[in-house]
Amino acid sequence: MQVGKPILYSYFRSSCSWRVRIALALKNMDYEMITINLTKDGGQQLAIIEYLEETRPTPRLLPQDPKKRAHVRMISHLLASGIQPLQNLSVLKQVGQENQLTWAQQAISSGFNALEQILQSTAGKYCVGDEVSMADLCLAPQVANADRFKVDLTPYPTISRINKSLLALEAFQVSHPCRQPDTPPELRA
Amino acid sequence: MQVGKPILYSYFRSSCSWRVRIALALKNMDYEMITINLTKDGGQQLAIIEYLEETRPTPRLLPQDPKKRAHVRMISHLLASGIQPLQNLSVLKQVGQENQLTWAQQAISSGFNALEQILQSTAGKYCVGDEVSMADLCLAPQVANADRFKVDLTPYPTISRINKSLLALEAFQVSHPCRQPDTPPELRA
Repeated sequence: MQVGKPILYSYFRSSCSWRVRIALALKNMDYEMITINLTKDGGQQLAIIEYLEETRPTPRLLPQDPKKRAHVRMISHLLASGIQPLQNLSVLKQVGQENQLTWAQQAISSGFNALEQILQSTAGKYCVGDEVSMADLCLAPQVANADRFKVDLTPYPTISRINKSLLALEAFQVSHPCRQPDTPPELRA
Repeated sequence: MQVGKPILYSYFRSSCSWRVRIALALKNMDYEMITINLTKDGGQQLAIIEYLEETRPTPRLLPQDPKKRAHVRMISHLLASGIQPLQNLSVLKQVGQENQLTWAQQAISSGFNALEQILQSTAGKYCVGDEVSMADLCLAPQVANADRFKVDLTPYPTISRINKSLLALEAFQVSHPCRQPDTPPELRA
């Protein structure tokens, strides 16, 4: 049924798009990108990542062990359902201009408090052990959002350490919001 | 490593808990329930459902075909990440007493508008084709939340039809919030 390259509808700044761009880069997949100046809701893009995992199993983004897979999914959902939807553009509009920053900081800090604790028992070099997983694809984009909303990351040493390791990887760099076709010149790096 | 029965920390009213209770009933699994008077964030409980699916594959909650699996996950994430986190207790507290109802109705309607359209191309008797899937485990609890927030369901005939079929199933009945050990007497049915 599949003809031609897959198409990714992407927005440079969207953390949801970035997650998928990392997965595509790790799977070494060729794709066309159509950029749209819009943000999208919540964690729907995890369905794309799970689909990629099932149809292109190498390199794996979910560990083989069911308990570790559950850890990866738990962390991914904490990030993609527990944090990201509360600080996305449509919600911030509803919250109103003057309350946006406080609202977003509160949503992210409260989620990161929980995450920092979970990572104590799951993390190795990355979120779950020493292999990059779907959880890491969700982490780096959310930390970038935290930076945008000026969240103090001092209370989250594990999150910060893992994020630093991730940003050293090629797949996270080529997919980064600062290097996309629709990135405005002033945000390029 | 597994000893004894699994334990579910459950709150009768939480849509996240209900999703998992349905999965446990469908998988015909014996478990202990510890009730906690708390609601939980977002879609983290999908990790439990995926874990159950991987360790107890029958009856399946994800279709065999990768595209249908992606549809199931897309709908599940739309419900569990795109809608539920925006109307959970901690967010409603932050929104403030006088705006809660409007806020919740807006979050649910906006998500249901998208869902009703997606279901046009995926639904059979249930959300994806004619077999109960993880998407249905997410749908029924969210429709119950919509009822609580007095959302008008007239614009969502497909959602309403599927929900009715689901509530006729034993697994959805035994796991229903109105029949849990911590359901207060006035909410029992």
